[in-house]
Amino acid sequence: MKPVWQIVGERPWLGWLLFLGTVAAVFAVGVLSASLIERKREGRLAFQQSVEIGDLESDSSVWGRNYPREFETWQKTLDGSFESKHMGSRAIDVLALDPRWVVLWAGYAFSRDYNQARGHMHAVEDVRKTLRTGVPQPGTCWSCKSSDVPRVMNEMGVANFYKAKWEELGPKIKNPIGCLDCHDPKTQDLRISRPALVEAFQERGEDIGKARHQEMRSLVCAQCHVEYYFKGEGKYLTFPWKKGFAAEDMEAYYDEVGHTDFVHALSKAPMLKPQHPDWELFQTGIHAQRGLACADCHMPYEVEGGMKFSSHHVVSPLANIGQTCAVCHRESEDTLRQNVYERQDKLREMLSRAQDALVAAHIEAKAAWDAGATEAEMTPALTAIRHAQWRADFVAASGGAAFHAPVESARLVTSSLDKAAEARLLLARILAAHHVTQPVPLPDLSTKEKAQTFIGFDFAAERAKKEEWTKTVLESWGK
Amino acid sequence: MKPVWQIVGERPWLGWLLFLGTVAAVFAVGVLSASLIERKREGRLAFQQSVEIGDLESDSSVWGRNYPREFETWQKTLDGSFESKHMGSRAIDVLALDPRWVVLWAGYAFSRDYNQARGHMHAVEDVRKTLRTGVPQPGTCWSCKSSDVPRVMNEMGVANFYKAKWEELGPKIKNPIGCLDCHDPKTQDLRISRPALVEAFQERGEDIGKARHQEMRSLVCAQCHVEYYFKGEGKYLTFPWKKGFAAEDMEAYYDEVGHTDFVHALSKAPMLKPQHPDWELFQTGIHAQRGLACADCHMPYEVEGGMKFSSHHVVSPLANIGQTCAVCHRESEDTLRQNVYERQDKLREMLSRAQDALVAAHIEAKAAWDAGATEAEMTPALTAIRHAQWRADFVAASGGAAFHAPVESARLVTSSLDKAAEARLLLARILAAHHVTQPVPLPDLSTKEKAQTFIGFDFAAERAKKEEWTKTVLESWGK
Repeated sequence: MKPVWQIVGERPWLGWLLFLGTVAAVFAVGVLSASLIERKREGRLAFQQSVEIGDLESDSSVWGRNYPREFETWQKTLDGSFESKHMGSRAIDVLALDPRWVVLWAGYAFSRDYNQARGHMHAVEDVRKTLRTGVPQPGTCWSCKSSDVPRVMNEMGVANFYKAKWEELGPKIKNPIGCLDCHDPKTQDLRISRPALVEAFQERGEDIGKARHQEMRSLVCAQCHVEYYFKGEGKYLTFPWKKGFAAEDMEAYYDEVGHTDFVHALSKAPMLKPQHPDWELFQTGIHAQRGLACADCHMPYEVEGGMKFSSHHVVSPLANIGQTCAVCHRESEDTLRQNVYERQDKLREMLSRAQDALVAAHIEAKAAWDAGATEAEMTPALTAIRHAQWRADFVAASGGAAFHAPVESARLVTSSLDKAAEARLLLARILAAHHVTQPVPLPDLSTKEKAQTFIGFDFAAERAKKEEWTKTVLESWGK
Repeated sequence: MKPVWQIVGERPWLGWLLFLGTVAAVFAVGVLSASLIERKREGRLAFQQSVEIGDLESDSSVWGRNYPREFETWQKTLDGSFESKHMGSRAIDVLALDPRWVVLWAGYAFSRDYNQARGHMHAVEDVRKTLRTGVPQPGTCWSCKSSDVPRVMNEMGVANFYKAKWEELGPKIKNPIGCLDCHDPKTQDLRISRPALVEAFQERGEDIGKARHQEMRSLVCAQCHVEYYFKGEGKYLTFPWKKGFAAEDMEAYYDEVGHTDFVHALSKAPMLKPQHPDWELFQTGIHAQRGLACADCHMPYEVEGGMKFSSHHVVSPLANIGQTCAVCHRESEDTLRQNVYERQDKLREMLSRAQDALVAAHIEAKAAWDAGATEAEMTPALTAIRHAQWRADFVAASGGAAFHAPVESARLVTSSLDKAAEARLLLARILAAHHVTQPVPLPDLSTKEKAQTFIGFDFAAERAKKEEWTKTVLESWGK
């Protein structure tokens, strides 16, 4: 057999044939690829055009006809199997898990009933069920629960929405948190649908319209997963960010405007109740510092039928370590999970110390009042209690605090403990001045029932009232 | 011009020539490479064989003839320019930087004089200079200061070394920490030269001889950079690791064996003084959990003249971010430095709260004694002070705690604050029982001088005594 170069050398036309043949084949592959990409794009466009989505379409299933993958993963937020497996029940009763909270929130609705939040699709169902509603509440409480909110706000005006009665708006609100809350129906761009976040940026002299796409992938979450309060008579939803995003900045803001969420039933301290400063605390941690957005870990990319999309099953990243942590970290799933658990365990221990000190402080303050202490004597101790509980609860209420920002969380809990200790020391001196020199006995807080009995809340009676309300009021709202 | 294949096709011998020529050229490159590699190896071997190093050779410059790169970088530990630039002085006076430590260590040598450790080459010089020596001290204090220690221990026996007087051993100890402390003179393998670490492993039922190479790259440091105490009359150097490596484990060990480092001059509390539990605390942090050893960041690899070697200029990794952090992390040097500083700042804030509480607790305890409190009344408060200070000081004394293990450090500081607060509350009740209901006034601790005056330590007089000692005793030791 002759070598190749000799065969080609003898027939120059064969060299040209090989060359031109290769050019033709590469061209054909290019055309084919472009056609496949185009077809994929057309497939997506075809979906996008199959249904016209209205400007205020609150029914996510309508959007779902164009975006089946996003819709189907969103529907998985009904599924609590991850939470159930890892946290022990579908709806975790925070008060049963740690009855000290009953005492810490005595005099406020959170001491009645407080379950860990479930998936987005449960939002309306859960807010209807809780014992925190049914008692008089403003319309503001609906703000974060439903994709019907933009429509109802549009109908009645934002300020009127907030100051309406919660029960009055009930029949209009049926759809849980869904597509319209974060997306533009025409372009599917991320979009802020709630005025409070836009107004909070304005108040800080910033324009949220200039946010980058990656920032928007957190800011749509920050419409709800933030600290807020109901301002003034109109119960106007307001984020206390004027002085900054740190717990101390918001504390200073509340002190300055003189806001108090509730007066504590035992200590009479003017208390603040943090909501869920998830976004704010996340910003102080290493993952945000490295440029990650909420969606990077809570809505990871998936691939299905050749299409890449962001999962709308918003859940703990630990439910999908392979799609979340493992994108950057090379350790085993088990190692990464243990790293998270270790931070949680250590922070829980720290928080527990602050909680113990705070429970004692409230009870000792009550003893001081009972012993005849005056308001002038009590004020410094009550202010210390206010600040101490704000800081510990800020961390406890912030979802994922121990992972999002373990060092900042630890710093806040330590400052809480310090202020709670200061309060107890002041109270010990007040008590001594009123001839109480023995330690004030602490109650048995081993169960939620015992804790609620201690603060004088009749859970069974309130549950019965709520059932009556469910039958009379709630059923009149329709499905 | 004809195409190449045609020229070759017409002269088949040319094809063979090209083919064989290529084979020959590749062979020649291979031979040359092997020769270069071999020469490099020979160069290293030549160094290794140029001087025979004795079994107990404590003079690092002898080793340096065979290992010039390691020796020259080790000599850089004399250079304090990084520390000077980043921490403000060549020898940081911890007591001047934070005079609260003077009160916290009242009754113990650390309240006299305490400078931040400098590089390894300063070890002998600095231990001679400090006001903590010259007062009677056991030989044990030399254990970690010099590569002469293995030789002197070999001459006189380990137990005799420890129980000798510090001054008696002084003339025999001249070389600072050097090669012999961590290396086998024959093989250069990492080797444990000090008995205390080997014995601590034995006490735990473990064999340090089975440690992997990567573990040894931390364990040679753990000969000294650990918590230890001087056990019993013989002042036998002992690591308190029998129950574990956590601060609480060592605390439980000390409680069980009834060890006390000093009785506090103000509070009379039976105190523990942590030394420098660097290795123990590092193990609890993410970098150790990811498999890093001390040497990975403190002795990074360098390349010089084509030779790769581990720098023996042991220093903060921040002095060489490019060779340390940047090996794994892709962020800018400035970002990485700020990440470290942020952890340090936050931990410093937490620690400061614990220090304040502890200073007050000691002073309030003194006031309680002065008011006539009994030992039975005081014991629970003094135990709380003992445990509180142990935990805060454990973190403060551990080099790099805020970076090595920020969450574990925070956990310990929070538990310290909790126990200090408990002590203060107990003391407030004791004081009230003895008719002291007003807050105990706290002194001005704004400078080291004021703090030392407050605890009754005459720095100037002690400095003069030390100078006298330097002239009489130290000069008799020779250079």
